[in-house]
Amino acid sequence: MSPLPIVRALDDLRRGLAVWRAEGLRIALVPTMGALHEGHLSLVRLARQKADRVVASIFVNPTQFAPSEDFQAYPRDEAHDAKLLAETGCDLLYAPPTDDVYPEGFATAVTVAGVSAPLEGASRPQHFGGVATVVAKLLIRIAPDVAVFGEKDYQQLLVVRRLVRDLDFPVEIVGAPTVRAGDGLALSSRNAYLSESERAVAGRLNTALRSTAEALLRGDPVDAVEARALACLDKAGFSAVDYLEVRDAESLARLGPGPVDRPARVLAAVRVGKTRLIDNWAV
Amino acid sequence: MSPLPIVRALDDLRRGLAVWRAEGLRIALVPTMGALHEGHLSLVRLARQKADRVVASIFVNPTQFAPSEDFQAYPRDEAHDAKLLAETGCDLLYAPPTDDVYPEGFATAVTVAGVSAPLEGASRPQHFGGVATVVAKLLIRIAPDVAVFGEKDYQQLLVVRRLVRDLDFPVEIVGAPTVRAGDGLALSSRNAYLSESERAVAGRLNTALRSTAEALLRGDPVDAVEARALACLDKAGFSAVDYLEVRDAESLARLGPGPVDRPARVLAAVRVGKTRLIDNWAV
Repeated sequence: MSPLPIVRALDDLRRGLAVWRAEGLRIALVPTMGALHEGHLSLVRLARQKADRVVASIFVNPTQFAPSEDFQAYPRDEAHDAKLLAETGCDLLYAPPTDDVYPEGFATAVTVAGVSAPLEGASRPQHFGGVATVVAKLLIRIAPDVAVFGEKDYQQLLVVRRLVRDLDFPVEIVGAPTVRAGDGLALSSRNAYLSESERAVAGRLNTALRSTAEALLRGDPVDAVEARALACLDKAGFSAVDYLEVRDAESLARLGPGPVDRPARVLAAVRVGKTRLIDNWAV
Repeated sequence: MSPLPIVRALDDLRRGLAVWRAEGLRIALVPTMGALHEGHLSLVRLARQKADRVVASIFVNPTQFAPSEDFQAYPRDEAHDAKLLAETGCDLLYAPPTDDVYPEGFATAVTVAGVSAPLEGASRPQHFGGVATVVAKLLIRIAPDVAVFGEKDYQQLLVVRRLVRDLDFPVEIVGAPTVRAGDGLALSSRNAYLSESERAVAGRLNTALRSTAEALLRGDPVDAVEARALACLDKAGFSAVDYLEVRDAESLARLGPGPVDRPARVLAAVRVGKTRLIDNWAV
């Protein structure tokens, strides 16, 4: 296994990509914040199927964290990440320094209204502005033919799809299924924060989402199902429930109180100790 | 003179540009809102010197007009514009329909803080947001190697430079000198609104800017020179003066009250009857 080339400077990145492009190769991007797990690696594998070359980026984007959040504590281990990426068939790691992405005087923001507003947008008001800006920058820097995002961050995937449509990026956005542990817990870099007892509680989030979806498919009304799921999460040992809601799968608009009549998604955010977890499930 | 090819659909545009790009040709963009005059044509000529192919765009961008402004009345004559562009050596006119640029559900905004805030930004609060968003879209749609903007809209040029730097667009931004009538009036599509008597008054804007710059170069203090220029504009017959200010030429930051000690720019916006005119002059 030869070591993965790591590029930090934009000029070097563009020079490398230009060579591939001149050869007519199709380029995929897998944007990450590092601390890679099997979920990220599944994105890389999907990207490989969609393109001739796979670029992964690692950038812990400060602008999508609120001051109270875990930007400083966010796990970082580039050497280990690079090893995993090389083993998974990634061709290039792009890991720019923070002051290269946001140099002195940086003043531009990209915002997406609508799908950004509820749920994560309500819990983390600046979050999707930071995401949209850095994703726009990565798409302009790398100009990939395809970019792969995990369905784990379902609302983020919708924000990115809207951004790409609205700004006319010539890129195909691919959503990849969530990779889960045996008890259903969605893999997340933040799972590393969980103690053993917290880890046991965490798995119940997915159980609640799954039973919510099953109840909706049986025809139970949205409002009753949501209330039942919230009660269930309350009893499950979570320290807080930010939200659990059934929403339109495309627009994230609220649904009427009755049975679901169109593609929907159950989305939730909870806290276990100090760790915030999100997950979602298709209906 | 063969007629200028006019492209309206994004797919057609990208197909055409891909052919040029495959031939290794350098592509310049001259973004306009139509109602072309000698000022625009000078941008096309400059673009020709900088690239192998020149694309002009005509798009009267609704999002950079406030509801009270002249979006509906803004002069439109595409056939005449296309004739002028063909005679000036433009290779392609890109004229997308409004609902192609902003389709149903459009929800993304690009904003530039800092240089967008004062002057035009204070007079027209949504203006530069609309400009930044549409310029970002044009740069993503066309992906030119170089784009030419007039110094007539000096603050806009600074906003575009900041946008391009911040979002990492691989494009060279060229500012082109303002083209003026014999009495110094900067050419503008909005000059068409002026009556004969208003036209006579309009020329005095540039006179005031020029004497302001001369006084500053003589070492007169900024505050006194600004006050004198405002008094002069008041007496010149303008119906209103939105602003006349001496600012840092790069950041548009306010200068101290004393003599200028760095590159500066005098910028002004006035009204003649119902017509709003802007101009600026280097110090």
